[in-house]
Amino acid sequence: MDSAELAELGQQLRVDGIRASAAAGSGHPTSSMSAADLMAVLLAHHLHYDFDRPEHPANDRFVLSKGHASPLLYAAYKAAGAIDDEELLTFRKLGSRLEGHPTPRRLPWVETATGSLGLGLPVGVGIALSGKRLEGSGHRVWVLCGDSELAEGSIWEAAEHASYENLDNLTAIVDVNRLGQRGPTRHGHDLDAHARRFRAFGWHTIEIDGHDVDAIDRAYGEARSTLGQPSVILARTLKGKGVADVEDREGLHGKPLEDADAAIEELGGVRDLRVRVHTPDVEGVPRSVPGGRLDLPRWERGEKAATRDAFGKALAALGTARGDVVALDGEVGDSTRTEFFAKEHPERHVECYIAEQQLVAAAVGLAARGWVPYAATFAAFLTRAHDVIRMAAVSGAGINLVGSHAGVSIGQDGPSQMGLEDLAMMRSVHGSTVLYPCDAHQTARLVATMAGLDGVRYLRTSRGDGPLLYGPDEEFPVGGSKVLRSLGQDDRVTIVAAGVTVPEALAAADALDAQGIPVRVVDLYSVKPVDRYTLRRAAEETGCLLTVEDHHPEGGLGDAVLDAFLDGRPVPRLVRLAVTSVPGSASPEEQLHAAGIDAESIAAAVRLLVEQAITP
Amino acid sequence: MDSAELAELGQQLRVDGIRASAAAGSGHPTSSMSAADLMAVLLAHHLHYDFDRPEHPANDRFVLSKGHASPLLYAAYKAAGAIDDEELLTFRKLGSRLEGHPTPRRLPWVETATGSLGLGLPVGVGIALSGKRLEGSGHRVWVLCGDSELAEGSIWEAAEHASYENLDNLTAIVDVNRLGQRGPTRHGHDLDAHARRFRAFGWHTIEIDGHDVDAIDRAYGEARSTLGQPSVILARTLKGKGVADVEDREGLHGKPLEDADAAIEELGGVRDLRVRVHTPDVEGVPRSVPGGRLDLPRWERGEKAATRDAFGKALAALGTARGDVVALDGEVGDSTRTEFFAKEHPERHVECYIAEQQLVAAAVGLAARGWVPYAATFAAFLTRAHDVIRMAAVSGAGINLVGSHAGVSIGQDGPSQMGLEDLAMMRSVHGSTVLYPCDAHQTARLVATMAGLDGVRYLRTSRGDGPLLYGPDEEFPVGGSKVLRSLGQDDRVTIVAAGVTVPEALAAADALDAQGIPVRVVDLYSVKPVDRYTLRRAAEETGCLLTVEDHHPEGGLGDAVLDAFLDGRPVPRLVRLAVTSVPGSASPEEQLHAAGIDAESIAAAVRLLVEQAITP
Repeated sequence: MDSAELAELGQQLRVDGIRASAAAGSGHPTSSMSAADLMAVLLAHHLHYDFDRPEHPANDRFVLSKGHASPLLYAAYKAAGAIDDEELLTFRKLGSRLEGHPTPRRLPWVETATGSLGLGLPVGVGIALSGKRLEGSGHRVWVLCGDSELAEGSIWEAAEHASYENLDNLTAIVDVNRLGQRGPTRHGHDLDAHARRFRAFGWHTIEIDGHDVDAIDRAYGEARSTLGQPSVILARTLKGKGVADVEDREGLHGKPLEDADAAIEELGGVRDLRVRVHTPDVEGVPRSVPGGRLDLPRWERGEKAATRDAFGKALAALGTARGDVVALDGEVGDSTRTEFFAKEHPERHVECYIAEQQLVAAAVGLAARGWVPYAATFAAFLTRAHDVIRMAAVSGAGINLVGSHAGVSIGQDGPSQMGLEDLAMMRSVHGSTVLYPCDAHQTARLVATMAGLDGVRYLRTSRGDGPLLYGPDEEFPVGGSKVLRSLGQDDRVTIVAAGVTVPEALAAADALDAQGIPVRVVDLYSVKPVDRYTLRRAAEETGCLLTVEDHHPEGGLGDAVLDAFLDGRPVPRLVRLAVTSVPGSASPEEQLHAAGIDAESIAAAVRLLVEQAITP
Repeated sequence: MDSAELAELGQQLRVDGIRASAAAGSGHPTSSMSAADLMAVLLAHHLHYDFDRPEHPANDRFVLSKGHASPLLYAAYKAAGAIDDEELLTFRKLGSRLEGHPTPRRLPWVETATGSLGLGLPVGVGIALSGKRLEGSGHRVWVLCGDSELAEGSIWEAAEHASYENLDNLTAIVDVNRLGQRGPTRHGHDLDAHARRFRAFGWHTIEIDGHDVDAIDRAYGEARSTLGQPSVILARTLKGKGVADVEDREGLHGKPLEDADAAIEELGGVRDLRVRVHTPDVEGVPRSVPGGRLDLPRWERGEKAATRDAFGKALAALGTARGDVVALDGEVGDSTRTEFFAKEHPERHVECYIAEQQLVAAAVGLAARGWVPYAATFAAFLTRAHDVIRMAAVSGAGINLVGSHAGVSIGQDGPSQMGLEDLAMMRSVHGSTVLYPCDAHQTARLVATMAGLDGVRYLRTSRGDGPLLYGPDEEFPVGGSKVLRSLGQDDRVTIVAAGVTVPEALAAADALDAQGIPVRVVDLYSVKPVDRYTLRRAAEETGCLLTVEDHHPEGGLGDAVLDAFLDGRPVPRLVRLAVTSVPGSASPEEQLHAAGIDAESIAAAVRLLVEQAITP
């Protein structure tokens, strides 16, 4: 296309964005109009993408980090022939694939869900990392960002990661339209303010007029030919470009144009240009995933082991068996034990340093390219990535998260390091699986199992050594549990525990047994989904469930058991032992006792229940 | 002190850090040793602080962002005479004030809890903002950071905020010891790599040898005399400085020295230097908090209003009545309605742009200086600040958070913008209060009430207009609820709703009533703590609670009701209606229906319960 045709295509994208938003009665046409020329030139000249084969390994990847500019994206899809005009006008309507913010759940050409700002670039870094380091593919990753979202720290975690990994296959395009939602951004049209920051973070920077299609064309070319570092194109644009009523004006974010017809006329009317998007020059190398037999670690009867150690060893073994497993570390691999994997499979280990948003976003990007990522840090610090995890679920991304150092049982380090909210966070994520093993063999099995699940999977591990409770061949299905002790109908109470509280519950059961109070102990390693059958049977037979967890009372194990009783059936009596105050520093044993979740506290609670004859 | 004495003081701090860690059997002495000279010079020459009067308004403020270097902090306290040697050696023991990571819960000289890296500087920015913009005080804020934590995006959100607000009263001191927990940092001893980044973000940068006490002294002086921008001192240091066995060595993070006695001897033995820390030169201006009568907004009977509008208006009114109220916006003030406050009280409005970690961290810093901050963004985007919120609770900080656009009821924008996990997140925070109003008058009252509570307070608001259900003089105590409809003992089921589901529940009750099925409707506006009395009575009288919430099933309203039944008493039958799938784009009404939480769905669920005669 020549310059005039590119400009025409830009106008068409504006018009179609306005039409889609007008049909919807909502949406972000002005945010789409500022980036229309950037998108037109990318689509016509630089993107290599086969819309008929979104899975093509040599496809470039495009991420709309400013997800609210979805009218522009869908207008581009139409120009590329991927959707028709009729579908374009279903934008934001019930049942349409064209949502307010794009998601890969519904559209095959979308790499990751966006709409929470500052996340497209971090995920794009993960995708580019896959291309550069793991796939050895020539595909490029193009990420269209807004200028407002550069205020998000996640952008700078991504910037640091991308330059550290020399991702010259990554180009960020920043639509500097100077206007955020409620007014001007901090830096307005000062392109160099943004450029200075990216340069300092090791990026190649290009500053252009984002409405000059020739300048845009040259910038993309320069980005493609820049080696050894990622490039960012800072494009000066006008929000609402091309329509005088809205151009460069405040107060119009996220609103359809008042007079769409007049605006369309001002832009030269409806067009129907079609773009033949370049398909990849090469067929692309089918992913080679070497693998071997899964040889999970084993421990000898009587040995003690920490579940974090078991995780590390199992992950290393899984990495040997499966060539598609990748581990990501948040600069705590010596604590979480991803270092075991790093030593055996350095080529599939990604060091993300202390940047938990990037840790999880990179995992989402790797998952988008078909890898099976395991991202690990302290359970407490995964809270940093809560929004990234939430959006991963919106994407339907398959990622494994591992949170170590859960709970007060870590001991002296104190509350800043204790994951006491992680079960609540991970349970509330749509479609998640939440696993909390209590011994090494159970951990190893679950590490292998989670690789094959859908959605966001979470494994909670503990710092200290614990006893072996299971043999190496025991199986632990997701949604299952283990009844570790029971006298059947004679049990007076059921103690439901998981992780570090399982050995405490067993010790309590010993003490209670000696006092003539038989209790049942359930190891609820699968916190979500829970084992409805076993919990219901325990409810019927013992009448009372006592849950004990190294977590705050809200959203954890105690709430999880309720999932078995939410259809109107009778609910057993419930008692919850959990961490209700802010711990200080103390030894692990002192911490469990102070929190009232050790064997002694459990036994005391059961005795109280039985003495009060509250149980049947 | 002359240079030799400063160097001696540095050695003493090293020795005392080693002694404390040795006594504890854990801790981070090597991370303390690298920063000992930085701390010695600060304490002896530059910090203005009255340890006898930590509340002194003109005190400088010191934040240990690298919170694991607590042995250094406590050694400094000892040198300043704030604690004695005996207490120093209680480090990390049960009951000691000297925790593994410092918290203001236990120590009056600690401004904010640290230990989750990358948070001290963001909170320090909030404290400096208070001094510069709100207090007009001459106090300085000194933040000691590690180099590893510069990888956190939160640091760059803070850097941007500080330079934008021209916080020349803020000095960041970065202990560039080149070693993180598991190995070298990305930039090692390349001070300029860090300096380039800070300069690009608008900071004055100073690079020094962090073991040269004269250079340190000059750097602090330069920082104090730099006007118009914050300063950062990048200090090249060695981890474990001064003890050959551990100096600049990997693999020793977070470990006491193997031979503490030999190390102490190598450092010249135990000293007992005392520092007379400069007290503030001025008395400090007592905070003037002008205020007036609280004149909350009122609506006319029959009017419709959105709870987000009510929040904005009530906050503006509260700002008039209380001079200590400050509002913080994450660049969505036109949506959350903090813009109403901004218009009336621009001097107490802080624009944080799209940087939610900084939004909440600045609030924590302001709270540390006695302000009553309200920080608002979309409920969905508060998940970005989960770790900041968690640490605010560890601090015991009193902050108000407001999450708007909660749930599927926002409509077309789709799942990326819908807060569906926020109740779970906020309930799991220690000591939090969670409020979810359903009408404008209730919202206004709760906005005023929350100002007076302790800890982290959360208010969840909704996007769309809803009916008025209460008069302007109705009171809404925290921990209360409202029974909006009841025929007493005849009620067959209790519907527990909050926020947007309250009008739906009332409409369902109308429909059911017409079919001869009387139901009770409870407005559970106080989600944490819950109204145990009303819920228990409803359980006794109706036997079944049906909860309905615009939130994922885990951790929200449905789990909250359980809080009334966790002492072993009989639990009613429970049915939960919540958002169980990933919504797309659709109108608010379509969304509520698709999620099965509208009036029709509620009525259908109740009929099913009653027909199945599951209820008594």
